[in-house]
Amino acid sequence: MSEVVEPVLIDGAWRASHLRDAFSATNPATGDRLPARFPVSAWKDVDLALDAAMRAADSLLTCTPNQIAAFMDGYAARIESSFEELAGIAIQETGLPIKPRLIDQELPRTVLQLREYANAARDGSWALPTIDVEHNVRSIHAPIGPVVVFGPNNFPFAYNGVSGTDFAAAIAAGNPVIAKAHPLHPNTSRRLANCALEALLESDLPAATVQMIYALSNADGVQLVADPRVGAIGFTGSRAGGLKLKAVADAVGKPIYLELSSINPVVMLPGALESCGDDLVKQLADSAQLSAGQFCTSPGLVVLIDGSAARAFVDGVVAIYRDAIPQTMLSHAGVASLSQAVQTVRDAGAELLVGGLPVPGPRAAYAPTLLRTSGESFLANPQTLQTEMFGTASLVVACRDLGELCDVLCKLEGNLTGSIYSHESSDNEAYAKIERILRRKVGRLLNDAMPTGVRVSPAMQHGGPFPATGHPGFTAVGAPATLRRFSQLQCYDRVRSDRLPRSLR
Amino acid sequence: MSEVVEPVLIDGAWRASHLRDAFSATNPATGDRLPARFPVSAWKDVDLALDAAMRAADSLLTCTPNQIAAFMDGYAARIESSFEELAGIAIQETGLPIKPRLIDQELPRTVLQLREYANAARDGSWALPTIDVEHNVRSIHAPIGPVVVFGPNNFPFAYNGVSGTDFAAAIAAGNPVIAKAHPLHPNTSRRLANCALEALLESDLPAATVQMIYALSNADGVQLVADPRVGAIGFTGSRAGGLKLKAVADAVGKPIYLELSSINPVVMLPGALESCGDDLVKQLADSAQLSAGQFCTSPGLVVLIDGSAARAFVDGVVAIYRDAIPQTMLSHAGVASLSQAVQTVRDAGAELLVGGLPVPGPRAAYAPTLLRTSGESFLANPQTLQTEMFGTASLVVACRDLGELCDVLCKLEGNLTGSIYSHESSDNEAYAKIERILRRKVGRLLNDAMPTGVRVSPAMQHGGPFPATGHPGFTAVGAPATLRRFSQLQCYDRVRSDRLPRSLR
Repeated sequence: MSEVVEPVLIDGAWRASHLRDAFSATNPATGDRLPARFPVSAWKDVDLALDAAMRAADSLLTCTPNQIAAFMDGYAARIESSFEELAGIAIQETGLPIKPRLIDQELPRTVLQLREYANAARDGSWALPTIDVEHNVRSIHAPIGPVVVFGPNNFPFAYNGVSGTDFAAAIAAGNPVIAKAHPLHPNTSRRLANCALEALLESDLPAATVQMIYALSNADGVQLVADPRVGAIGFTGSRAGGLKLKAVADAVGKPIYLELSSINPVVMLPGALESCGDDLVKQLADSAQLSAGQFCTSPGLVVLIDGSAARAFVDGVVAIYRDAIPQTMLSHAGVASLSQAVQTVRDAGAELLVGGLPVPGPRAAYAPTLLRTSGESFLANPQTLQTEMFGTASLVVACRDLGELCDVLCKLEGNLTGSIYSHESSDNEAYAKIERILRRKVGRLLNDAMPTGVRVSPAMQHGGPFPATGHPGFTAVGAPATLRRFSQLQCYDRVRSDRLPRSLR
Repeated sequence: MSEVVEPVLIDGAWRASHLRDAFSATNPATGDRLPARFPVSAWKDVDLALDAAMRAADSLLTCTPNQIAAFMDGYAARIESSFEELAGIAIQETGLPIKPRLIDQELPRTVLQLREYANAARDGSWALPTIDVEHNVRSIHAPIGPVVVFGPNNFPFAYNGVSGTDFAAAIAAGNPVIAKAHPLHPNTSRRLANCALEALLESDLPAATVQMIYALSNADGVQLVADPRVGAIGFTGSRAGGLKLKAVADAVGKPIYLELSSINPVVMLPGALESCGDDLVKQLADSAQLSAGQFCTSPGLVVLIDGSAARAFVDGVVAIYRDAIPQTMLSHAGVASLSQAVQTVRDAGAELLVGGLPVPGPRAAYAPTLLRTSGESFLANPQTLQTEMFGTASLVVACRDLGELCDVLCKLEGNLTGSIYSHESSDNEAYAKIERILRRKVGRLLNDAMPTGVRVSPAMQHGGPFPATGHPGFTAVGAPATLRRFSQLQCYDRVRSDRLPRSLR
C-alpha cells in the first residue's frame, strides 16, 4: 500500500513531491508520532522551485512596493483570522502552550512583523535611494534574487521560513522566498504556507513568490545554498549546521545571514545583588524558563563576584528550580542535545547545583538546571565552558573580584546580547570598566533586564559578532535595516532617465 | 656589513623592524633596482602593532567625530602640500606619469576622499543612529575595532593602505588602521605614512591610529587576518590572493571587504555601432589604455553582434593599437601575468588580432592587445574566456544575433561594471532585454560610457557581485555607505541615559 505524503508548494501550487524519503512529526508532550507524512524532497523539487523562483524574481521587479505590501498585509490578515487553528496545530508539533505563548505572543508578533515590513516596503527608504545630479550618478538597494530561508525549531511562526522575520524581510525587499520548513513542525508550516498561497493568488505578485519544501538530504541542502540561482540565504538554527552552510555560501561569495548560537552573558554587580537580590532571582528563573529555555536569547551565563549576596542569589534560583515543573521541550532530540551539553560543561569542571537530568517518561522535558564554576576555573577552560546549553540551563561564574570578572568577559565569544545589572550609584565605576569589554562582544546591551524579549523596533539589533551571527553589521529583526540584508547595491551611471527605476528619476 | 633597512610605523613611531627578510622596489621604466631596502616583517612587528591598535581603538571611542575629521583634514593638507615630492617618488616605483595621472588626477582624488569621508564623520548620519523612545531601545553603527587594509599595486595613493579609500573609510568610522603597504611602492607608502604620523601627532587622536608594515610572509598574512584583535579587513588586489584571505576571515566570521577581479563587459548594440562607430573605437582604445589598462574598471570584454559595423569597429581599434606606443606597466611581474592571461584566452580559442607580446628590453611594457572570439565559441568555454587580463587587453565576443548575445551575458560572472552603448531609438528593445540580464550581474551600470573613472559620490557603487567583490551590498567608494562597512551595529536596550553614547541620548 503506497502511503499518502503531503505535497510541496512549488510554482504557485501544491504538487506531489519527488520523494527521496518521508517523515512524520512527533508530539513532544506525549511522544506520539503524528499521522501526516511529509516528504524529504529529491533534488528535482529544488530544481523546479529554483527555476520558478528565478521567473518570479524577474516578475517581482515590475511589481510596485504597494503591490508587495498588499500581499504581505493580506497574508497577515489570513494568519490573524486563523490564530486558533494555527495554534492548535502548533501545540501538537511543538508542545508550546497555546496561551499565552502561541496565541497571545508569537502569532501577534508574526502578524506585526509582516505588517511593519510591509510598511517599510511601502515607504521605500530602506533602499537608500541616492541621486547625485551633478555627476548623473544614482544608486539604490535592489532585490538580490531568490532567497532561501531555513527556519529554526523554536519559533513555529515568528521565525518560520515561510512566515517569519527573514521571510518577511526578503519579501519586503522584493525577492521571492524558497522556505525550508523545519521538520519538527511541518504541519504548522503547511498551514501557514497555504495562507501565503491564498493571499498570493489574490495579489498582483507572481504565484511562485512563496514556495516551500520540508526536508532535504544534507547534500541537497549544500547544493541548494551553492546554486547560482540563489541570491542570498537566511539561516536560523544550530551552530554546526549553520557553519556547514556558511562555508558553502562563502566559497561562492554568496551572502548568508546566520543566527547560530549565543549564551547571552548576564553580569550581576555587587550593589545590584545586595539591593535587590530576590528580584534578580525571580528575573533569572523566569527568563531562563521561558519556552523551556529554547530561546536564542536565553540567559545561559551569569557572571558575578562571589560573596554572601551572590551565594544567596544562587541559592534562591536553586530553590525555585527544585520546585519547578519542567516544561515540555520541542523534541526528544533537543532533550538529548541539552543533556550532552550539560555533561560537556560538567566535564569541564562545573558543579551541578540543581537539575541535570531529563524527566523520565514519554514527555520531552528536562529539569531546570543551574551549574556553577569559579572565575579561575572558567579562565582555565573558557572555550568549553561557553558551550551553548539550549534549554533551561545556566552556568554561574563566581569570580574572586572585579579584575577576574573582567578577565572572564575578555574571554567571551560574540553574543546576541549582554546584560549588566548594577546599583544606581555604587556600581558605576565597575559598570564603566565592564561595559568597555562587553559592548563590542554583543549586539544588544541591556541594563537591569534579562535578554529574552526582542522588540520589533527600528532600533533593534538582533544580531552580533561571530559566532552569534556571521556579520556584526546586520540585524535579523527590525525594519528598515533587516530588509537591506536581502539586497544588492546598484548604481546607475549616466543612464538615460527613462531607463531609470522610478525612485531614481 | 649589515645593510640599512627602513623602519616600520608601529605605535606612533618609526621603529626598527623585526626582520624576516628585506626587499627593494624596482623602477619598471628602467628595470633598475631602487636603493632603499624595506623590511619583510616577522610576526613580532604584527603582534606589537595589533596590541597598539587595540589600545588605540579603545581611546578612539572617547574621541569626537570632529577630532577624527580634523586629523583627516590635517593629513589631507599635508599630502596636498607634498604633491610634487610624492609624485616624484611614485613615478620611480610605479612608472605612472606624473602628469596628468599622479598630480592632476590621483593625488587630488586622494585628498578629496580624505576630506569627503572626514565630512561624513563630522556629519555622523553614516552611523544611522536610531532612537525608539516608546520601548527605550536605541541603536547605532559603532566602530568595529582595528582594521587591516591591504592596498593594491595600481593606485599608489588613492587606494594605498595608508591613504586610500578603505583607509579613509575605516578611520572616519572611528577605527585604527594597520596598513599593509604594497611591496611595489614602499617608498611612496613610507612618505605617505609619515604625513599621516605628522598629522596624528598634531591631532587629538592616539598616535597608534595609523600603523604600517610593508611585507609579510604568507603565513603571517593569514595569521594577521585570523587574529582576534582584528575587527575587519579591506583588501584590494588579485583574485587568488584575496580568496585565500577571504577563506581565513570567513572561517572565523570576520568581515572582509574585497575587490578581486572584474572584466567590465561593454555591450555595443548595432544602432550605436552604425551611428557612431568611430567614436566608439576611440572611446574603447582610450579607456583600455588608461594606466596601461591596470584599472579594476578597465574594459576587458566587448560584446557585440557581428556585421559590417562591428567589423569596422574592431578594425579601427586594431589600427590604433598597431600604432600605439605601449605604456610602462607597474612591474615586470605584471607583464608576465598579463602574458600568461592572454595565452590562456588564446588557448581557449580566441584569435589574437593585435599585440600579444611584451615589449623587448628592460622596460616593463606590453603591446596593446585585442582578441576576438565568436559567441558560439564563448558559450563553449565561458569560464576560461572570462580570465582577467590585467593590462591593455580586451576580448571581443562577436555574436550571431541578439539571442546569442543574451546567452553570452547570462554566462557572465559578477563584475564591478557593465556598459551598454545604444542608439537613442533603434536599440531600445534590445536594451530592455539586455539590461534585465546585465543589471543583476554588475554593481554599476553605464549608458554610452566606458567603465573607467569612478566618481567619489554618495551615489557610487564601486562594488558588485562575486567575484568582483565578496558581498554585493557594499561599496568601496562613496560616503556615507563605505564607512558602514567598518562598523558593528550596537543596540542599547533600556540602558540608563547617562550611559548612552552622546548621539543616542
